[in-house]
Amino acid sequence: MITKVKHIGIAVNNIDEAVKLYTDVLGLKVVATETLEEQKVKTAIIPVGESEIELLESTDPEGTIAKFIEKRGEGLHHIALGVDNIEEAIKTVKAKGIPLIDEKPRKGVQNTRVAFLHPKGTKILLELVES
Amino acid sequence: MITKVKHIGIAVNNIDEAVKLYTDVLGLKVVATETLEEQKVKTAIIPVGESEIELLESTDPEGTIAKFIEKRGEGLHHIALGVDNIEEAIKTVKAKGIPLIDEKPRKGVQNTRVAFLHPKGTKILLELVES
Repeated sequence: MITKVKHIGIAVNNIDEAVKLYTDVLGLKVVATETLEEQKVKTAIIPVGESEIELLESTDPEGTIAKFIEKRGEGLHHIALGVDNIEEAIKTVKAKGIPLIDEKPRKGVQNTRVAFLHPKGTKILLELVES
Repeated sequence: MITKVKHIGIAVNNIDEAVKLYTDVLGLKVVATETLEEQKVKTAIIPVGESEIELLESTDPEGTIAKFIEKRGEGLHHIALGVDNIEEAIKTVKAKGIPLIDEKPRKGVQNTRVAFLHPKGTKILLELVES
């Protein structure tokens, strides 16, 4: 069911500043930036092997990322695991009694279909991404 | 210089309990458990594609993981990126002015050689692992 680590989401105050560590210092490249209006977040995608680092900057002081940073500071926000089939994955997780934030797939970055599990069942914010 | 996401470290109170999400629910497997006496931590290694999830449980109330959980609760603790050559990676990072916790490689899990960067330069706890 799980294929790989799809991405690691990192909450930052300023993408342009945060990106330097990954590009100038570690030699990685930003291949895409995208704003998800619905989720009030701007993202920069940095491939690392078969995975990606996803830098997340809030576009709104009331957005989830702004709230996260307010409470915990900048840092690791969530991880996303790749799945073959998002509907099946949701069904399996639900059947095992793990609470979900999204019981139906929603749109993620790069036109993916995604579902977040509820942290109370997982200890971390875990996203499933059909890829 | 960076080859892949080597692992994602997750701080938990109880590995035996935390592991169930990854095994029973998500269908992954624990391939190794290891205690690093020096770092006061017990680990369980769960491969996901070319990466691993590394569950971390403190073996001592004064250990780093116990302190982390006390302050922030269970959750994402660090990420490790694979590098070809740890000495060269340390040299590059240092030359770019990023502070390191380890200026010389130390022993990580599974007999790897690792170095942690200092979070004040990276916003997250970032480990480099020769692999």
